[in-house]
Amino acid sequence: MQRKSFGSMQCPIARSLERVGEWWSILILRDAFHGLTRFDEFRKSLGIAPNMLTRRLNALVEEGLLERRRYCERPPREEYLLTERGRDFRPVLLALIAWGNKHYAPEGASVLLADAVTGEVVEPVMADGATGRRLTESDFRLVAGPAAGEQIRQRLAIAEENRKSNVLRSKGV
Amino acid sequence: MQRKSFGSMQCPIARSLERVGEWWSILILRDAFHGLTRFDEFRKSLGIAPNMLTRRLNALVEEGLLERRRYCERPPREEYLLTERGRDFRPVLLALIAWGNKHYAPEGASVLLADAVTGEVVEPVMADGATGRRLTESDFRLVAGPAAGEQIRQRLAIAEENRKSNVLRSKGV
Repeated sequence: MQRKSFGSMQCPIARSLERVGEWWSILILRDAFHGLTRFDEFRKSLGIAPNMLTRRLNALVEEGLLERRRYCERPPREEYLLTERGRDFRPVLLALIAWGNKHYAPEGASVLLADAVTGEVVEPVMADGATGRRLTESDFRLVAGPAAGEQIRQRLAIAEENRKSNVLRSKGV
Repeated sequence: MQRKSFGSMQCPIARSLERVGEWWSILILRDAFHGLTRFDEFRKSLGIAPNMLTRRLNALVEEGLLERRRYCERPPREEYLLTERGRDFRPVLLALIAWGNKHYAPEGASVLLADAVTGEVVEPVMADGATGRRLTESDFRLVAGPAAGEQIRQRLAIAEENRKSNVLRSKGV
């Protein structure tokens, strides 16, 4: 599939998507979080064609999300381990699980997150790392960071205007 | 691009990815959160080919993430608004922003999340909705939900075994 490169965009979402690659990559990362490390383990788990899996693993190594390690010299065998950058992708997976469970699991959840000690099921939400306060849409907004260029500033200014006019509209002004 | 359908997989991540569609869809959702609603607004913001944008908007409407609304009868003009399901996708975007800012913004962040009242910048993390406790990898694990089938149960059992053996290994056992 041909597509425009997102990597040149300044938006952190576009840059993230560029580096992750395709959907397959996200499922490979999921399996890596489950402790799978070997080519055949990924292949069996995903039912993915070997040439596609090779390509996706290479891309994830190149982007620094997985690290390739030789675990056997004769015959040469390699395994794939999450790097710190790969581990930092976990919140995205948790957010996808929460969304999938809410909207695409009519028969009930098949995967849940639980406290490792008590086994109590928890609801993954986005919160402020400092206070634990939930990051609701009404209380928090995106703002330009120190490195924001003109395009990002314009986009956020438009968003802010839209937000204000929506607030006014909802107040019946 | 041909690919296997993820929708038939039971994993909530796979199902989510199936419904969102392509990367473009995620950037369209981002713009919708910024308050963009009209075809030309999305086209300008994204620099996307019109036929591709039409296809992606149709898919997002079909999946119930956007709602199409006629805002002008003559000439007929439509706008696209986030549904509740679309709004619930916001944590995924916040998680992508946090990851992108950490790993792909060497020049500094271009977009940050801030308290709408105080303007104080916050760090978006995944937390337990009930307690605000951060969902670290060491303290929380994925478990089978009530609707989990055999494949999910097996995958999570393997993950749990790997986790235990890693804990033992890290303790030098």
